[in-house]
Amino acid sequence: MIDPDVSAVLRAAHRIAPYAHRTPVLTSRSIDARVGAPVHFKCENFQRSGSFKLRGAVNGLLGSLTEARGRGVVTHSSGNHAAALALAARLLDVEATVIMPETASEAKRQAARRYGARLIACGPTLADREAALESFISAHGALFVPPYDHPDVVAGQGTAALELLAEVPDLATIWVPVGGGGLASGTVLVAEAAGVTVRAGEPELADDAYRGLACGERQPAPPPLTVADGLRTALGVLNFRILHRYGLTVTRVAEEAIVEAQRLIWNVLKVVVEPSSAVPLAALLEVGADAPAGVILSGGNVTLPEV
Amino acid sequence: MIDPDVSAVLRAAHRIAPYAHRTPVLTSRSIDARVGAPVHFKCENFQRSGSFKLRGAVNGLLGSLTEARGRGVVTHSSGNHAAALALAARLLDVEATVIMPETASEAKRQAARRYGARLIACGPTLADREAALESFISAHGALFVPPYDHPDVVAGQGTAALELLAEVPDLATIWVPVGGGGLASGTVLVAEAAGVTVRAGEPELADDAYRGLACGERQPAPPPLTVADGLRTALGVLNFRILHRYGLTVTRVAEEAIVEAQRLIWNVLKVVVEPSSAVPLAALLEVGADAPAGVILSGGNVTLPEV
Repeated sequence: MIDPDVSAVLRAAHRIAPYAHRTPVLTSRSIDARVGAPVHFKCENFQRSGSFKLRGAVNGLLGSLTEARGRGVVTHSSGNHAAALALAARLLDVEATVIMPETASEAKRQAARRYGARLIACGPTLADREAALESFISAHGALFVPPYDHPDVVAGQGTAALELLAEVPDLATIWVPVGGGGLASGTVLVAEAAGVTVRAGEPELADDAYRGLACGERQPAPPPLTVADGLRTALGVLNFRILHRYGLTVTRVAEEAIVEAQRLIWNVLKVVVEPSSAVPLAALLEVGADAPAGVILSGGNVTLPEV
Repeated sequence: MIDPDVSAVLRAAHRIAPYAHRTPVLTSRSIDARVGAPVHFKCENFQRSGSFKLRGAVNGLLGSLTEARGRGVVTHSSGNHAAALALAARLLDVEATVIMPETASEAKRQAARRYGARLIACGPTLADREAALESFISAHGALFVPPYDHPDVVAGQGTAALELLAEVPDLATIWVPVGGGGLASGTVLVAEAAGVTVRAGEPELADDAYRGLACGERQPAPPPLTVADGLRTALGVLNFRILHRYGLTVTRVAEEAIVEAQRLIWNVLKVVVEPSSAVPLAALLEVGADAPAGVILSGGNVTLPEV
């Protein structure tokens, strides 16, 4: 496979259009005042399945549809990719199996089940998941759709930035969170072609992208300590290659800054986001801006406290 | 003054456009499935000041701008109208004073202060507020901008339904919450002209509109028991007249249904709404629908629990 480029993103936009929401862009004058420039929030928390992950999952399935229909698909995930793949599979008439650690929240199990996926429980570690995945694939021959380390998935995730730039063409910068790097690499493909700068926010407690891009070598997954549960993974191989070639600047943020940014989004923007989605705004608030900035709010799958 | 009609709403839409957000309309397939028909949510929780009230406040000020600039304006409110009038006054270069019960939450006091209004504390009862208002007006000659019982305010609130129908022309019904009746009457003016039915949700614990419209006589304000704090007031005189002439059907909902609908909106639609905003969806879930329905989400000013 060759690395995807912006034309892969344009093709993805065309083919996922019947299945994905075109999400709205929101603004808040009081956030603009705090940042120092207009900020445009691309609300992927409103995306179907509750996060941008649906874009990559649908594009991943469409890229191998005959095979996927023949063999069924499988993935391992305790988070948004599980729900996204389950929904994408239902929309495209594909059988899906999701391997989830038994420690995954009931809410996340329910989401995958609601979309009709088969659930298989496994142990809590990455090794447990990979072993369960291997054994499922040997037994059933299903096609593995990875959460970020795949050209079709990366191209699908890039469509969020494409829509954002179509709606707000004068952005100087687009801020994204970085975990596995699917959203960040897809955004880079679009932004490079458009002459816009991509910046990333990453939790201090899960700063493998920051450290790896600085020393030129992929780092292992950090211990799962940060509140931003979507960003606890390490960069994928393809994702690292794209982001390193691009020279992505990563800003690290403290846990308190993430929680504060999340509350700001809830209180001022009035949208429900999960902690991972607040990481780029936390970074942007620290760095400031003097020209219009975009922020991709990655998802809204969070268990709400009782009111 | 004569009662406003749809052309007053069209004029209001034109004149408030530079000051109000054109708010997005959101949908959710899982809510559609529960209701039985497509539901389109007009997100006034994203409106400036955090609720639809800005529309009426701006239109109220623009209707008497010379007088308002000369004398300043005043209102009494512990809720969204206070913040809306404060912001409208700042946008239009008018001095504003808000009389707030000393029991109002610090969050609401801060909102009014942030927009530059002068705050005057008063006792907790309606009589206390009205006495403080009278004495302020005698002393300073300020112009009173009421929260709902005024033709310009009603016309301003109707602009939300106008935008909703412009975006989703095939609605059969528009659901609104009913408290003082500003939003409900403005929506009626638009919906009548467009051939759409208006339906209202009201808390069982504050059902003065339901009882008053049934017997043909305005009822006194209910005791402030419902969690839907924006709907604790009685219908205004003008509002009662418009809604009674129209023959509005009001569906009453229990407190538990309001809280459940609020959580559904948070969890599935991923937007932050205050309890009053969940009342029409609670009613719609009870009644069901067999044709596309609109729901106006009135506001998002709620103190969030700690995450």
